[in-house]
Amino acid sequence: MNVSPKITPVGPSPLALAEMAHAIRFLSIDAILAAGEGHQGVPLGMAEIATTLYARHLKFDPADPTWPDRDRVVLSNGHGSMLLYSLLHLSGYRHISLDAVKRFRELGSPCAGHPEYDPPAGIETTTGPLGQGIANALGMAIAEAALNARFGDGLIDHCTWAFVGDGCLQEGLGQEVIQLAGHLRLNKLTFFWDDNAITDDGSTELSISENVAERFRVAGWHVQEIDGHDIAAIDAAIAAAKADSRPSMIACKTVIAHGVPRLEGQRGGHSGKLIAQDRADMAARFDWVGEIFDIPEAIATAWRETAAHGAKERAAWSQRLGLASDAARDEFARVHTRSLKDGWRETIHAFKERAAREGRAEFSIATSGEIAARLYDVLPEVVTACADLEAPTNHKRQLAAFTARDRAGRYLHCGVREHAMGSLANGIAAHGGVIPLAVTYLPFSDYERPAMRMAALMGLPTIFIFSHDSIGIGKNGPTHQPVEIIASLRAMPNMLVLRPCDAVEAAEAWEIALEHRTGPISLVFARQSLPQLRRDGCRENRSARGAYVLAEAEGGARRVTLLSTGSEVQIALAGRDILQGEGIPTAVVSMPCWSLFEAQDRAYRKAVLGEGCVRVAVEAAVKFGWERWIGEEGGFVGMSGFGASGPADELYRHFGITAEAVAAQARERL
Amino acid sequence: MNVSPKITPVGPSPLALAEMAHAIRFLSIDAILAAGEGHQGVPLGMAEIATTLYARHLKFDPADPTWPDRDRVVLSNGHGSMLLYSLLHLSGYRHISLDAVKRFRELGSPCAGHPEYDPPAGIETTTGPLGQGIANALGMAIAEAALNARFGDGLIDHCTWAFVGDGCLQEGLGQEVIQLAGHLRLNKLTFFWDDNAITDDGSTELSISENVAERFRVAGWHVQEIDGHDIAAIDAAIAAAKADSRPSMIACKTVIAHGVPRLEGQRGGHSGKLIAQDRADMAARFDWVGEIFDIPEAIATAWRETAAHGAKERAAWSQRLGLASDAARDEFARVHTRSLKDGWRETIHAFKERAAREGRAEFSIATSGEIAARLYDVLPEVVTACADLEAPTNHKRQLAAFTARDRAGRYLHCGVREHAMGSLANGIAAHGGVIPLAVTYLPFSDYERPAMRMAALMGLPTIFIFSHDSIGIGKNGPTHQPVEIIASLRAMPNMLVLRPCDAVEAAEAWEIALEHRTGPISLVFARQSLPQLRRDGCRENRSARGAYVLAEAEGGARRVTLLSTGSEVQIALAGRDILQGEGIPTAVVSMPCWSLFEAQDRAYRKAVLGEGCVRVAVEAAVKFGWERWIGEEGGFVGMSGFGASGPADELYRHFGITAEAVAAQARERL
Repeated sequence: MNVSPKITPVGPSPLALAEMAHAIRFLSIDAILAAGEGHQGVPLGMAEIATTLYARHLKFDPADPTWPDRDRVVLSNGHGSMLLYSLLHLSGYRHISLDAVKRFRELGSPCAGHPEYDPPAGIETTTGPLGQGIANALGMAIAEAALNARFGDGLIDHCTWAFVGDGCLQEGLGQEVIQLAGHLRLNKLTFFWDDNAITDDGSTELSISENVAERFRVAGWHVQEIDGHDIAAIDAAIAAAKADSRPSMIACKTVIAHGVPRLEGQRGGHSGKLIAQDRADMAARFDWVGEIFDIPEAIATAWRETAAHGAKERAAWSQRLGLASDAARDEFARVHTRSLKDGWRETIHAFKERAAREGRAEFSIATSGEIAARLYDVLPEVVTACADLEAPTNHKRQLAAFTARDRAGRYLHCGVREHAMGSLANGIAAHGGVIPLAVTYLPFSDYERPAMRMAALMGLPTIFIFSHDSIGIGKNGPTHQPVEIIASLRAMPNMLVLRPCDAVEAAEAWEIALEHRTGPISLVFARQSLPQLRRDGCRENRSARGAYVLAEAEGGARRVTLLSTGSEVQIALAGRDILQGEGIPTAVVSMPCWSLFEAQDRAYRKAVLGEGCVRVAVEAAVKFGWERWIGEEGGFVGMSGFGASGPADELYRHFGITAEAVAAQARERL
Repeated sequence: MNVSPKITPVGPSPLALAEMAHAIRFLSIDAILAAGEGHQGVPLGMAEIATTLYARHLKFDPADPTWPDRDRVVLSNGHGSMLLYSLLHLSGYRHISLDAVKRFRELGSPCAGHPEYDPPAGIETTTGPLGQGIANALGMAIAEAALNARFGDGLIDHCTWAFVGDGCLQEGLGQEVIQLAGHLRLNKLTFFWDDNAITDDGSTELSISENVAERFRVAGWHVQEIDGHDIAAIDAAIAAAKADSRPSMIACKTVIAHGVPRLEGQRGGHSGKLIAQDRADMAARFDWVGEIFDIPEAIATAWRETAAHGAKERAAWSQRLGLASDAARDEFARVHTRSLKDGWRETIHAFKERAAREGRAEFSIATSGEIAARLYDVLPEVVTACADLEAPTNHKRQLAAFTARDRAGRYLHCGVREHAMGSLANGIAAHGGVIPLAVTYLPFSDYERPAMRMAALMGLPTIFIFSHDSIGIGKNGPTHQPVEIIASLRAMPNMLVLRPCDAVEAAEAWEIALEHRTGPISLVFARQSLPQLRRDGCRENRSARGAYVLAEAEGGARRVTLLSTGSEVQIALAGRDILQGEGIPTAVVSMPCWSLFEAQDRAYRKAVLGEGCVRVAVEAAVKFGWERWIGEEGGFVGMSGFGASGPADELYRHFGITAEAVAAQARERL
């Protein structure tokens, strides 16, 4: 790989760096003492590591925190948040003012208990649930590699750094990350492992015996083992990490809560309550003259100067951007603002019109793959990750694989690692410039649910795509048949969940997904083939209102409203046929997305649901949550427990999810 | 560790074993052909491994499938279910009749698409979602070790074997298992890794580069690498595995779909659709004379004879049990029938009465720990697993740690591995004889949710205990504040969810948890200290009805019903005070468990909810699902999105979860 011309930072002397590290320590414990709680273990233990990184190696510019080619820094051991806030404050990120630090953990402060995604403040991702941060970092490194392949070293060529605790590496998620990053040889990814031999329970010997460094080596990482308080060693290790062609893990032997005599190296060092005397003792230890929340001017100045080389790098980068072709510059700007290329909507509309016209009875997850295939050509920024289900989910299509040798590939074989897939997709979304899809079966969404929650919490536009959404999968049985999972996703704030009923709604779902930028979206598809229900190819996105009248009642005022989603809408329509045949005016409402419907005005909602009508819902899932739409006394046709192994049509009959049952539920209530 | 006297099986000659392995192959593809779908890769690839295990080493007796000291066999690569059904049918498990095999994947057959927990049929656990099986196996090995320490080699001394595919080892869950089993040195646990270099996507090279055998060695396992079709090598490897003091991984180089020329060693070998010609080709390859579903008599006989040595072992075991002391025999029977020891209920009642009497305002997760501490003495079969949160969850109490050296310890430091914790707890429950608790924070339940789903699906009585149940945790911020998680657990079929409001309800929740045997239960507690609300120490378990009137309306017919759970019940009571003060007769209903309330008769439910009353719910969580109890137009005071970092009391005000808001919601509706 070519290396762009770079300004090599020199930075402060080791002596000054030691003092600068102490500034992190004191700022951190001053904030923790003020808050009355917090985790001092990480900032006190990793102060030298972080200082050396920022002062000597990190490419960053607090004057432009979201500069696309900045290095990314992730504090995966997020409980050590004061390490990050100290770094951001000291190096000059405006949002992390001294006032903000003084209000650590208070309502409204950007210095929350755990780092909360806030790029303008320099916080690249939300961390706290362990392992998520390093998985996000993996995604950032993938995004960097993909963008580097597209735009070249001149525009994108940066590193991703993560601070990592023992917990992150015990989590299965962390282990998935180790395997995958090693496999993909993401050479610009570096972990600093805070090897302090202490977790919340005490000695790491309580729960782990393996040689962690060896574990990384087995996975193909470049591994160095150093004293995490030795600035020269840290400096050399970072340089070696950057030079190596593999991802790097720097195992840093540290003393937890280093500097507080009462707690250092102890279990209580992690987050044991600090007292004023601890600060006094640490001040005595380090001959520290700064008062509370006061950083001696020389040290503060040295910290602010750490940004100088990054500012120069950014200036050089801007120059290179200016020299790039108009097309490259425009495209670079387009993907980094998540603007979509002209033609994307027309592509979806064309698909929609054709689907409505042709009316093929073969809607399924494969349809989503067909739509994706058309969009892949229009939107080169889309990268698709999938957890070893390429064939049955059909979203690879024309994409080449993203591999250790080919960074231009846009299909990421994640292996059977759903959790890492979801979290790295979040990291890609947080990085920007690349739109991530994450594809697996809906029953396995539970494996990546912690990542989905993080996307929702951060407001990241990660697109989650699921197949195998109900008992309709048939003979693979109840492990593979979601019944409660759609409800559990609907319950998640800021997570759009769409379950289209046919190819037209699928196209509409894709249109919504690409336009939605304030949070993640889950597109849920069946595996089995389903008929085409919508024969209107209208340009209006009817799914965007969440629910709409698919078939209005006929022969009089509506008496029954049948509500349904996805594969059961056809059953609702058949139920309507029965009821209409009996002279009961019945409407069918397709509700692909509850939360979008919830967001409509009351008048629209009432018109769709039908005032004074009997309401019956049909969905091959549990009833939980449906009372919102059918009321306490409404009818429900669906599942009351887990599924079974058998042919799909038999299962539908076995569990009583039939048009007859729908009609009966309505009749009972008339 | 002492070894009990054992009958060493000799079993059939290698030549006969080869033929017996072919019987697995033909039975499997006959069933898959009949079903029209299935996964032939595993049964064809692991036939020699399985045959050698069953014929030469496995301690089992189909005449008594649930014999407590049987070896446990787990097919972790559950998609290869026909391997297990073939083994069970051929070796003589009655439930897996030839008819059942012929109806593979059909509704009602015990031969479901993936193995479904069914001990009388010889199916020790449900598998399919990858990694769960080996984590269950880890739990079974822990249960064995714990029981062995309690009852000695004479009564419990068996092995646990798992068939494992690449997917299980790519899943983070699998990696957690590798770490933890190595750490605990579970010497009677053996994995057979089906090293066929193929996953669903194709070559494993697409997604993994590490040397899997080395990865196990790093974690402290005994590792052997053999040809998985070489019976002598398999035999020797199993013997060596049993002799070693570490857990064993036998890396078996195999050819996927071995025997079907068109598919073997290919991606399609995994589950590509079989055709009749494949069977003909395989029959030609192996000179197989058996017709479809017909096993030549000599081979069938050899298979049935594999059970002979197990029957002898069981007879010897029965003899030893007969010679044991009455106390030992009774206790052994008690724990294996999950009967509870006299005194357990009195212990809970005594706690409850004292809590009601003393009225200390310090209810929290610690209270659950106090109850557990009392029960630990009464119920020596309880083992508590916790994911590195010993201090803040307070459930270790007097327990010693279960370690590599001390199997009598009853507290399992799982490390930061929630997923393995949940799944191994399921394995413990499936093994029997030990009651597992799994303890972590509620926000991290998402990490173990796939395990919770498996417990619910299998109907295993795993007890999940959670702390940190809402924004009440305060300054650690939204990553640590569940808002949607209670709803997502309530949505899960067969999962009881209890959120007690005080120490009395906590005691009632524990009583319910210990009596509940048909599925898992989640006990959800706050971290913050809460007042004692119930001052009745009545022996009746009021929580067992799911919801009850905690404070009836006064001064006239009830006009308002306030519904609440957990930490918000005190807010509901304060809201009632306001409304009663305004002359509005208002009742407060505590609803610790929705599903138990749902199970009550309609009359009770109506009486509790109050007919014609305004209903307002208050819960520091999302509204999702509450319409079931408050109706479409009911009031709700709670969260509409994620939380924030700040002091708990400020957060409650910030999000408007106050008595005033409750009263206002009620007033608006009167």
